[in-house]
Amino acid sequence: MSEECGAAPGAAAPSAAGPGVIDLLGLLAYARLVAFFRLAGDAEFAPTLASKGALADLAGAEHANYRRLHDRLAELGVQPESAMEPFTAPLDAWHARTEPQGWVESLVKVYVGDGIADDFYSKLAELCDEQTHALVRGTLVESGRAEFVVARVRSAVAEEPALAGRLSLWARRLVGEALSQAQSVAAQRPELAALLASGVGKVAPGAGADGSGQDEGASAAGAEATDLATVGRVFADLTESHTARLEALGLST
Amino acid sequence: MSEECGAAPGAAAPSAAGPGVIDLLGLLAYARLVAFFRLAGDAEFAPTLASKGALADLAGAEHANYRRLHDRLAELGVQPESAMEPFTAPLDAWHARTEPQGWVESLVKVYVGDGIADDFYSKLAELCDEQTHALVRGTLVESGRAEFVVARVRSAVAEEPALAGRLSLWARRLVGEALSQAQSVAAQRPELAALLASGVGKVAPGAGADGSGQDEGASAAGAEATDLATVGRVFADLTESHTARLEALGLST
Repeated sequence: MSEECGAAPGAAAPSAAGPGVIDLLGLLAYARLVAFFRLAGDAEFAPTLASKGALADLAGAEHANYRRLHDRLAELGVQPESAMEPFTAPLDAWHARTEPQGWVESLVKVYVGDGIADDFYSKLAELCDEQTHALVRGTLVESGRAEFVVARVRSAVAEEPALAGRLSLWARRLVGEALSQAQSVAAQRPELAALLASGVGKVAPGAGADGSGQDEGASAAGAEATDLATVGRVFADLTESHTARLEALGLST
Repeated sequence: MSEECGAAPGAAAPSAAGPGVIDLLGLLAYARLVAFFRLAGDAEFAPTLASKGALADLAGAEHANYRRLHDRLAELGVQPESAMEPFTAPLDAWHARTEPQGWVESLVKVYVGDGIADDFYSKLAELCDEQTHALVRGTLVESGRAEFVVARVRSAVAEEPALAGRLSLWARRLVGEALSQAQSVAAQRPELAALLASGVGKVAPGAGADGSGQDEGASAAGAEATDLATVGRVFADLTESHTARLEALGLST
């Protein structure tokens, strides 16, 4: 990978990292901040002191992730809040549309919803310079989340088998809403879409870096037309890990 | 200070630390966990991305404090959740009775309410063994909180001078409710009350450690009768720092 993946040479880029990379870091920083809020809220309403503590630990890990992404943006000479700003609306919309009804739905959302989102971010990070890739990979470590959630969801389903059908539907809705928001982001952030497209052979790597500024619209010819298809294809590629997570919870796809 | 301050030699104490110390660590662990929930909630509803991030940082610091206290309890051979349990009701009651109406009241609560609570815990920790004292002192570091809160409250008051009177009353109520909950805790946890009393000359240091178990009631003769007075005296001793905090905010006592 190029050290300047997504960079816009000659443009008023504040650093070696291009707008695709800055977008990814801004998106992820806000995603981690909101994940922190969600997990802290879930922790507060968890049924026991031990599960409050366990979820508070997960929230603490998300805060640390947010802080690292935030600091990396500042290090790149970017105002972190400006980089996060374009992603507040779609991420807030995703959370508003997937408000869990109760504790078990929260757990499924944390595991299945954040799981597929993390796979998606990971895919994007693979297309970036090594430093960005390593940073993003570091923030995606599930840090005990899987174990904690899987045990609790399985025991809830064992106690009330009818839950399995409801939770399977819930998981399907989570993925549908995630796909919808990802497509909206791709439509609004052409550099990020170009970065993503570079990974599925629609656009050659680096083709998005033609020197256009962020406000000049899509920079790679034909990128707009394929945005929706690209996002859909990437999501389809993530099916395997998604199915594995559902199976771990004892749910069907 | 004795290495076994508050210890109950010969009793079924699980470690060198006595019930007064275990109580203090359990109380503080739960206080930090709840402070984490409050700050994370305040962060979520903060008006800008930058203030969301700054409050999330404070919440992250409180989570780290909770984790250290929790791990210390486990290290002492105590089930951390059992040590925290007796303090959930009074701390939840304190928060329920001091629900802030809006963002500025939240900030004042964080600074003034947590400030006096921290001074109180600090007073208790001084009476413990050096390791406990150092641990507690470490969890009370204000880590940028003061600076963040003071600037925001002062600017809110400058914009709307009538706020000063309302916030001064709010600060008074925060202290009143804290005193009331501290007295309730002292009445219910005689070892903790004895530890506190040992610091104000009512009971000689270590006098509470007469070998009684946690469920045998007050162990130092006369301790019950002076519990309320002791807590009141300790709070009175904390007036100076409390007044300094109010002055920093531009509020009156």
